[in-house]
Amino acid sequence: MPDRQSVCFIIGGARSGKSAHAEKLITALPAPWTYIATAQAYDEEMRERIAHHRARRGEGWETLDAPLDLVGALTSLPSGRPVLVDCLTLWLTNHMLAEHDVEAECARLVATLAKPRGPWFVVSNEVGLGIVPDNALARRFRDAAGRLNQQVASVASEVVLTVAGLPLKVK
Amino acid sequence: MPDRQSVCFIIGGARSGKSAHAEKLITALPAPWTYIATAQAYDEEMRERIAHHRARRGEGWETLDAPLDLVGALTSLPSGRPVLVDCLTLWLTNHMLAEHDVEAECARLVATLAKPRGPWFVVSNEVGLGIVPDNALARRFRDAAGRLNQQVASVASEVVLTVAGLPLKVK
Amino acid sequence: MPDRQSVCFIIGGARSGKSAHAEKLITALPAPWTYIATAQAYDEEMRERIAHHRARRGEGWETLDAPLDLVGALTSLPSGRPVLVDCLTLWLTNHMLAEHDVEAECARLVATLAKPRGPWFVVSNEVGLGIVPDNALARRFRDAAGRLNQQVASVASEVVLTVAGLPLKVK
Repeated sequence: MPDRQSVCFIIGGARSGKSAHAEKLITALPAPWTYIATAQAYDEEMRERIAHHRARRGEGWETLDAPLDLVGALTSLPSGRPVLVDCLTLWLTNHMLAEHDVEAECARLVATLAKPRGPWFVVSNEVGLGIVPDNALARRFRDAAGRLNQQVASVASEVVLTVAGLPLKVK
Repeated sequence: MPDRQSVCFIIGGARSGKSAHAEKLITALPAPWTYIATAQAYDEEMRERIAHHRARRGEGWETLDAPLDLVGALTSLPSGRPVLVDCLTLWLTNHMLAEHDVEAECARLVATLAKPRGPWFVVSNEVGLGIVPDNALARRFRDAAGRLNQQVASVASEVVLTVAGLPLKVK
Repeated sequence: MPDRQSVCFIIGGARSGKSAHAEKLITALPAPWTYIATAQAYDEEMRERIAHHRARRGEGWETLDAPLDLVGALTSLPSGRPVLVDCLTLWLTNHMLAEHDVEAECARLVATLAKPRGPWFVVSNEVGLGIVPDNALARRFRDAAGRLNQQVASVASEVVLTVAGLPLKVK
C-alpha cells in the first residue's frame, strides 16, 4: 500500500494496460476514489475511447473533468483522498493545442505533484521510442512529453512501466 | 527449461532480437522444432526479410506457413512439440487486411494459447511506444496489437521484453 | 565504478534522459572527460538541440566533433580516458545520408568498441517500438539502428535502458 501522501507514476505505451493497472492499484485502497479525466472529446474516435474507459469503472468512483486545470482539480480535493489522473499526455496535448505556455504549465503541475495531498496515481504515455516524427509539432509534443515524464518521475515515489499489461518496476 | 505445456511470450521492437532470442530458447530443447511462419510476402522487401529469417534456421526445423489459420496450425501439432510462432503482429496484419473480425480471431487464438499443448514460444512486436500515428488504420492496428499482446501475456507463463538483443524479464 | 576498459551502453527514447544519465555516470570518474559529439547541425532545430546539450556540460570537458569518423576519434584518445559518445543514432544517420556502406561502418565501429581503451559511455536511441514507418528510408534506418544497438549491446559490459530519466538495468 502506498503512503498516504505519495505519487505513483504509471507510464506505458498505447494499449499497454496503464489505466487498468492504475485502477487496480487505487481500488486496493478504501473508496471513494477520484478519477481526474483530462480527455477532451474532439471527435467520435475520442468519444469512444472515453466511453470505453468509463465503462470499466464502477461504484465508488467520483469523476472530475480537468482537460486544462489539473492543478486546480488536484488541490481542490480533501487530503488523503486516493486520486487517479488519466492521463498527463492528453492534458499536455490540450495545453499545446490551446497554445499555452507549456513549460510554465508543466512546472506548476510538477510543483503540485511534488507535494501530494494523498495517494495519487498518475498515468502517462511514453511516446519517444519510435522513429523521429515527420512533422515539427509531433516532435515538439514528443520532446515536451518526454521532459514532463522525467520531471514527474523525479518527484514520484514509485515509477512503473507497463508492458503488455504487466508492470515493470523502474523506481 | 520451460514446462512441457506452457507459453513463453517474447515481445520487442523492430530489430530488437526477438526472433533470435526465441530461437535460442527453443533450440535449448530437443529437436524437432516447428516454426510457424505468419508472414505473407506482399512485396520484395518482405520477401527479403522472410529469407533472412529462414537463413538463420538450420537442421531440426520444420516450417509451417500460417498467415491466417494459426489456431489450425497449433492444434494440428503433436502434444509436447516445441513450437515457435513468428509473429503475432504479422498474423494480426493479415487478418486486418482481409477485413476479418479481428476481435473474434484474437479471442480464438488466446483461447488456444491458454491451453498450450507443448512448450510454445510466441513472438510479437510492441508498436505502441511511439507518437500517435497520423492515419486511422495504423491507430486501429496499434490498438488491436496492444490488446492482443495484453491478452497473450495474461495467459503466458513467461513474458520477456527484448531490448537491443537482450531479454528483460517482465513475467 | 566501471572498469578502466569497458563500454557502458545507454539506450533510450527521445527525451528519456539518456545523455543526462551518461553524464552523471562519467562525471563520477575523475576529469578530464572527452565528449564525442556526432551531431551535425543541418537546421535551426538541430542547432538548438546541440546548444542545449552543450549548455548542460561545464568544466572538465573536452569536446570532439565526429559526425562520421567516430572510430578515428575513439582511437586518437589516450588509454584510460573516460569518453562519452553522444550518440550512435546521429552518427548512423550521417553515414546513411552520405550514402556510405552502413554495414561496413557499423562493423568497424563495433570492432573498436569491442576493445575499449578506457571507460567508454555510449549513448543511442531506441527507435523500433512504434508503428512501422510509412517511408522506406525510415524503415531502413530503423532496421540499421536496431542491428547496431544489438551489436553494441553484445560487446558492452553494461547496458541500461532509460525510462523517464530513470535507468533500467538490461545487462
